[in-house]
Amino acid sequence: MNAVVIAVGSELLTPGRRDTNADWLVERLLDLAIETVWRVAVDDDAPRIAGLVRDARRDAEVVLLTGGLGPTDDDRTREALALALDAPLERDAAMERHIASLFSARGRTAAPRQFVQAERPRGGAWISNPLGSAPGILVERDGVLLASLPGVPAEMKVMFSETVAPHLRRSGRGALARRTLRVAGRPESVVDDAVRDLYAAEGVTTTILASTGTVELLLLARGDGPAQARGRLHAVESEMRARLGEDLFGSDGDTLASVVGQLLSNGHRTLATAESCTGGLLGAALTDVPGASAWYRGGMVCYANDLKTSLAAVPGELLAAHGAVSEPVARALARGARHACGADFGLGVTGVAGPDGGTPDKPVGTVHIALDDGAEGRARKLDWPGDRDLIRRRAVASALDLLRRRLVER
Amino acid sequence: MNAVVIAVGSELLTPGRRDTNADWLVERLLDLAIETVWRVAVDDDAPRIAGLVRDARRDAEVVLLTGGLGPTDDDRTREALALALDAPLERDAAMERHIASLFSARGRTAAPRQFVQAERPRGGAWISNPLGSAPGILVERDGVLLASLPGVPAEMKVMFSETVAPHLRRSGRGALARRTLRVAGRPESVVDDAVRDLYAAEGVTTTILASTGTVELLLLARGDGPAQARGRLHAVESEMRARLGEDLFGSDGDTLASVVGQLLSNGHRTLATAESCTGGLLGAALTDVPGASAWYRGGMVCYANDLKTSLAAVPGELLAAHGAVSEPVARALARGARHACGADFGLGVTGVAGPDGGTPDKPVGTVHIALDDGAEGRARKLDWPGDRDLIRRRAVASALDLLRRRLVER
Repeated sequence: MNAVVIAVGSELLTPGRRDTNADWLVERLLDLAIETVWRVAVDDDAPRIAGLVRDARRDAEVVLLTGGLGPTDDDRTREALALALDAPLERDAAMERHIASLFSARGRTAAPRQFVQAERPRGGAWISNPLGSAPGILVERDGVLLASLPGVPAEMKVMFSETVAPHLRRSGRGALARRTLRVAGRPESVVDDAVRDLYAAEGVTTTILASTGTVELLLLARGDGPAQARGRLHAVESEMRARLGEDLFGSDGDTLASVVGQLLSNGHRTLATAESCTGGLLGAALTDVPGASAWYRGGMVCYANDLKTSLAAVPGELLAAHGAVSEPVARALARGARHACGADFGLGVTGVAGPDGGTPDKPVGTVHIALDDGAEGRARKLDWPGDRDLIRRRAVASALDLLRRRLVER
Repeated sequence: MNAVVIAVGSELLTPGRRDTNADWLVERLLDLAIETVWRVAVDDDAPRIAGLVRDARRDAEVVLLTGGLGPTDDDRTREALALALDAPLERDAAMERHIASLFSARGRTAAPRQFVQAERPRGGAWISNPLGSAPGILVERDGVLLASLPGVPAEMKVMFSETVAPHLRRSGRGALARRTLRVAGRPESVVDDAVRDLYAAEGVTTTILASTGTVELLLLARGDGPAQARGRLHAVESEMRARLGEDLFGSDGDTLASVVGQLLSNGHRTLATAESCTGGLLGAALTDVPGASAWYRGGMVCYANDLKTSLAAVPGELLAAHGAVSEPVARALARGARHACGADFGLGVTGVAGPDGGTPDKPVGTVHIALDDGAEGRARKLDWPGDRDLIRRRAVASALDLLRRRLVER
C-alpha cells in the first residue's frame, strides 16, 4: 500500500528548517506496512496545494496532509481540499458550537475567524482534535483515503494515532517488517562489498547509509502476512550479522554510546574521559544515554596544553618530546582520566580538528585516541580529512568503538 | 521567480534520512532571488517522477532535479524526463566517447550499462560533470528551465554552481535580500509579540522559528532590484534590532558560542567550564567554534558527585546541605572551574536531565547555572519540562547567554 505525505507551510521552505512532521508520519506509516512514495513540503498557496493533492491521489491509496488548518489567512488547506476534490466548502453548525464551547470553557469568546475551522469539503468527515481547536478532515473517495491534520506536532500525532492509524489498520493490505543494523569501524564501501549480493533477496529492500563514523543498513521486508515479512527479514538479517561479526555493534535504536554503556553496566565497570580536540563531545555522547551515571564517572576537557598536565597529569616532558597530538599524550590522557576519576577505563582524545593548526607532519584530521585499562591498553590513529565537525564526530565514534571492541573481547 | 526542487531516490523516503541536497539547492536558489514553492522527495519510479515533473512545470519557472542519473537500474530520471516532456531518449555518440575516455584514462573499460548515461530526451542539452561520469541534462521549454543533476552531493554542487547558476542569473527577474536575526533568553511567544506588527511590512516576509534555547527571525525581502530589496530589508531589520535590544545576540551564521567567543577574544579574557548534567555538551559547543583555544581553556565533567569535590573543589558540606542540583553547587562548580583552569570566567551547570532522577522538589528539567567572574557572579535557575536532549541543550544555551549578557554589559 502506497502513501503520499504533503506538509503545508511556507516556513517549511526556509533554509535550515527540517520537516519533522513528515519524518514522523513516514515512520508511522511504515509501522502500518504502508510505504511513502513521495513526500512534499509546499507553501501556503491553495491552488498549488490542490494540484499536489490531485497528483497524490493519482500515485497513492493514502494521502496525508499536515498543516494549514488553523484560523489565519495563511491556513489554506481547507480551500485546497475543496479545489482538489471539486467539492464545495460547507460550514458545520455542530462544529461551530464545539469551537465556541472550547473558547467559552476558558472564559473567552471565539473571534469570528475561528469559525472557518468549522468548514469542510462536502462529503468529508471530522477527525476530532483533543488538544486544540482545529479539527482534521477525513475523505474517502475512489479507493483513496485522504486525511488532513493540523501542523502543531502534538495535535497531529495524537490525531493520527487515535483516528487515522486505526482506520488504516482496518484497510491495510500486506505486511512489512523492518530492522536497522549498525556497523562501526568500517567505511561504507567495505560494508557494501560484504553484503551487496544480499540486496537482491526477494521481498527485502536494503538501503545503506553512512552516518558519521558508523554505517547503517536499513532492511525493509514485505510479505503477504506478518509471518512472511518477518521470515524474509530474518533470513537477510542473520546472514548479514554472520558476515559483519564484531563490526556490527547494534540494531534499531542502539547508539555506540548506549551499547558501550550496556557493556560497562553488565560488567559493573566504569569509564572516565580526557578530551582535547573533541572538547567535551565524547562526554556529551556518553551522557546522552539515560542512566549514564551508573557507568560514566566524568572527566576533563584539557583544551589548553597546560591543563593536560595540571588536570590529567600528562608529564610536561611527554608533551615537549612528542607534541600534544601524539599517541603517548593520548595514552597519558586516558591514564590520567582513569586515575583522577577512579574509573576502570579511561579514554583519551587529542587531535587537530582544524581548520587551522595543521602541519605537514600532523595535518588537519590527525587524531590520536587511547584506551587505558590498567594493563597494556590500546591506541588508534585517525588521519581522515574533513571539516571540523566531521573530524570531531568521527573521533568520538572511534573512541567509543575502541572501548566497545575491548569490552566484547572477553 | 518560482522554483520546484525534486530529489529522486527511494533512500530519501527512509526514516531518519534528511534530504540535504534539496536543503542546499533551496538555499542557493534564494541567493539567486528564486523562491522554492515546493520541494519533494520521490522514490525511484519513472512514472511517478514524470508526474511530479509535469506538476512542477505547472507551478514554477525553474525545476531542479537531483539524483537518478547514474548507470544502475535504479536510476530512472532520464526515462522520467522523456515521459514528462514527451520526448524520446536519444543516445549521444559524443557523450559515449567521453564516458569511454573517462574509464580508459583510469586504465579501465566502461561496462555497457555505463553508456545509458549518454542518453537524453530530444531537445535536451548536457550539463558537464567535472567530477564523475554522469552528465546533467538541461531543457528549456515553454518558459520553464529544467535542470537535472546527479545526486552525489559534490557533483551536484559544482554542476549547479558552474552551469545552472550562471544560467539562472542571466534569466533572473526581481531581487531578494535575506537576514536571519537570532534571539536568546526569550520564549518564541515573547519575541513574536515584540515584532509581530512588522510581519506586514511591504515586500518582506518574516518567519519565526524556535530553535533550542534561541529564536530565529528569518527575513526575506523582495524588490524590483537589489537596492529596493536591501532597503526594505534594512527598514524591518533595524526596527527589529531596536525593539529586541540585548536579547538579540547575532545574525546569519552567528551562534551563541561564536558570539561569546568573539566577546571574550575582544576583551582578552578566558573561560573554563564545570558540567554535571550536560556532561561535556557546553565544552563541545564552545570548541565547535574554530580558534576556540584563544579564549576557552577547558574544564571538567563532574558527572559523579564525588568528582564535583575532587575535580572542582565543591565542598562536601555544600553538597550535603543543598544537594547536587542547587544554586550554591552551581556557583561552586563555576568557581572551581575558574580556579583549576586559571581562567577569567567560570561556568557551572548542574541539573536533572531525566528521564529518571526527578523529585517533587527538583523535578526533571530543574537546572542551575552559575557564572563566576571573581566578583559577585550570577546564577539562573531553569525549570522547563522537556526530554533529556532538550533539557541539556537548553541548559547549554542558557549558560552561554548568561555569560554573553555579562560580557556585553560593560
